Amino acid sequence: MKYTIRGSFLDFTGDPFFVPQQECVRYIKDGLLAVENGKILDFGDYSKLQSKYRGIEETHYPGKLITPGFIDAHVHYPQTKIIASYGEQLLTWLKQYVYPEEEKFNDKEYAGEVASFFLEELLRNGTTTALVLATTHPVSVEVFFEAALKRNMRMVAGKMMMDRNAAEEVLENPGQSRKVCEQLIEKWHGKGRLSYALTPRFAISCTPEMLKVVGEIKKEYHDVYIHTHLAENKEEIKKVRELFPRSNDYLEVYERFSLVTDRSIFAHGIYLSDSELERLSRAGAAIASCPTSNLFLGSGLFKMSKAKSREIHVKVGIGTDVGAGTSFSMLKTLHEAYKVAALNEKKLSPFQAFYLATLGGARSLSLDDKIGNFDVGKEADFVVLDLAATPLMKFRDQNALAGSLPQLAEKLFATVVLGDDRAVTSVFIMGKELYKRPS
Amino acid sequence: MKYTIRGSFLDFTGDPFFVPQQECVRYIKDGLLAVENGKILDFGDYSKLQSKYRGIEETHYPGKLITPGFIDAHVHYPQTKIIASYGEQLLTWLKQYVYPEEEKFNDKEYAGEVASFFLEELLRNGTTTALVLATTHPVSVEVFFEAALKRNMRMVAGKMMMDRNAAEEVLENPGQSRKVCEQLIEKWHGKGRLSYALTPRFAISCTPEMLKVVGEIKKEYHDVYIHTHLAENKEEIKKVRELFPRSNDYLEVYERFSLVTDRSIFAHGIYLSDSELERLSRAGAAIASCPTSNLFLGSGLFKMSKAKSREIHVKVGIGTDVGAGTSFSMLKTLHEAYKVAALNEKKLSPFQAFYLATLGGARSLSLDDKIGNFDVGKEADFVVLDLAATPLMKFRDQNALAGSLPQLAEKLFATVVLGDDRAVTSVFIMGKELYKRPS
Repeated sequence: MKYTIRGSFLDFTGDPFFVPQQECVRYIKDGLLAVENGKILDFGDYSKLQSKYRGIEETHYPGKLITPGFIDAHVHYPQTKIIASYGEQLLTWLKQYVYPEEEKFNDKEYAGEVASFFLEELLRNGTTTALVLATTHPVSVEVFFEAALKRNMRMVAGKMMMDRNAAEEVLENPGQSRKVCEQLIEKWHGKGRLSYALTPRFAISCTPEMLKVVGEIKKEYHDVYIHTHLAENKEEIKKVRELFPRSNDYLEVYERFSLVTDRSIFAHGIYLSDSELERLSRAGAAIASCPTSNLFLGSGLFKMSKAKSREIHVKVGIGTDVGAGTSFSMLKTLHEAYKVAALNEKKLSPFQAFYLATLGGARSLSLDDKIGNFDVGKEADFVVLDLAATPLMKFRDQNALAGSLPQLAEKLFATVVLGDDRAVTSVFIMGKELYKRPS
Repeated sequence: MKYTIRGSFLDFTGDPFFVPQQECVRYIKDGLLAVENGKILDFGDYSKLQSKYRGIEETHYPGKLITPGFIDAHVHYPQTKIIASYGEQLLTWLKQYVYPEEEKFNDKEYAGEVASFFLEELLRNGTTTALVLATTHPVSVEVFFEAALKRNMRMVAGKMMMDRNAAEEVLENPGQSRKVCEQLIEKWHGKGRLSYALTPRFAISCTPEMLKVVGEIKKEYHDVYIHTHLAENKEEIKKVRELFPRSNDYLEVYERFSLVTDRSIFAHGIYLSDSELERLSRAGAAIASCPTSNLFLGSGLFKMSKAKSREIHVKVGIGTDVGAGTSFSMLKTLHEAYKVAALNEKKLSPFQAFYLATLGGARSLSLDDKIGNFDVGKEADFVVLDLAATPLMKFRDQNALAGSLPQLAEKLFATVVLGDDRAVTSVFIMGKELYKRPS
């Protein structure tokens, strides 16, 4: 099945942290996207492609901006219901709110209900791919993958692995964990658009034996992901030092078990030394920075400009980190990333922000051969944005389409600052419109 | 004209920063508010008052929470259109975006259009009173007061006073400024629900002569307000030190001209010494803290817990500070205040937050005899909130009404974190419904 979309398109062909924006921002004011069997068949100026697709069904989105679907590089689906829980920093917050909620995910029905709502909420916010944490219970992964498969969404997820420092109900032993992970990988990894991520919660909740198991499974199934937390909070780091006295720093804990790979994604990375950042870079590993979460829990300020400096150059994606994160909206999350940069006395440009949410996110998940921009052959996951979605955005003249890159930058920035789920009017998954904003 | 409102009500009779919440939070799960001629005639349990008002028109808001209207303690109406302007800290941001926009407010029509939109936007967000800065042009105040009078909103505003360090078009000389201010005070101060605030922009844009004029007018008209900025940004403070070398600190610049009074409101106050905070407290002056602005411009983190400590005890209100602030929503602004506290490793409880937006704001503006809670005799400005306004809020069980204070605190907190203008379903000004959310 073939059809075309006409409208204004924005995507990236390179990284605006390192390449001048004229060379990496692809803005086509009047463009055409041709989709066939869920993939991008053609993409370019409307005037040039129009005749080629005469007679093919065309949908026109005048005045809207079409971008690749957003990629959420770190989010806990079982924490959807405890979003906005009051008043604690990381370690207390885990004990008080997270573990009691995660216990419930041994119940298939409960887990399934949350998984469905979670995916619908991602769609409402324009997020088409996410790197997702489940709970220790295998059923929490089963229902999540089923729900994602049903919607044909590209998702990477895995069961939480943890064998100490939490409530009995969410713990397991390493042998058990290994067996279950292998079963889940065999069943789900590579099925449809799904991939598996080995997900040790973080060093505090894993014994060396458990971390060893993770490394061993990764050797067996080399193309699965590793997904964990790193250097989010000062108390956490202190505790890791106590638990792993032989490691010189936090990253070394993971390195000792061969967990720092080019398919490893570490959430947060707020308190990392230059050496740790350089070792992440050399390994080809990625950081998922989660600004709303870091501000909400008072964790601290991620140093984006250092991680994305020419000298260090770590892959970075942006995560909402719901439930410590306060919104499923990637726009709101980019807004907070901007504020974190401002508090660090740095800037995050609107193009850099949108890059992180699209191609940058895809690269951090090693999925840039499949998603992240409108290159021909990629999967057609995209979002139609309304830059004038609220009365204030309208009043600010967000209606007018941008002619030049600087104008577009200004409108994008205002969309990041003032926008939310209302700015998302349509979301396409593999070429199929799965969400349409109620009018 | 008399009518009653039935519903769940929340307001404050004391300050939850100093008084246990059981003694200052007034939560009536099934309450009745009787309004006559725009004022509160009666307020209490529905079961007790019901018979007294039998036969009188009653509106019931089941499942909603009714609070006093929000008070925005610092906001620039002429900056509405430049909200979300990219990339600069305070002093550059003023030059690049603010002064060019403020120049336009010499045009009555332009100013009037923005003033009307601004007031509608306040209403959409549940804000019923604000302390507002106009531009240097008297017409910018005229059209604002006219628009507020038309809506019968309680507003405090004044023309900007500045005679140096900005574009010619927004400057004036002190003699001229004095004359115009006196005319505006004579015409508007005390008219309807309007009050006048002498508004020297900040020390950097005023010569000593101009600040002297402000003090002199204040002596003449003792009950007008003084409204300015204080210690927002490190560069600003450095510049103030250069311009006023004889003052030992920033506050002393204002003290020397008798501008620190019990009707003085200073925006920001991020970088204040203990001595400055104590002197503000002794003078009965207030700070308007503006968290979204402080994060957006990277200005810094206001120390709420110090200003509101038993030892110091300065009056504090919350300002959106649009256009450096990023939203007209007081809910969003309280959310950012929470994050600022978290980064300072302190907590801001949901009751403290709502206090700041209502009675605390009224006290900071010396208006607590007229607005801020549901005391009998006060003006009936109130807001009907929908704590389950979005799919995510609904999913989080925000529907159920709270029975106890801890339950209410939890729901309020989630409303602050997840809510926005959509949580505001109705806004009443002097007993009249001026805004109703489209359904």
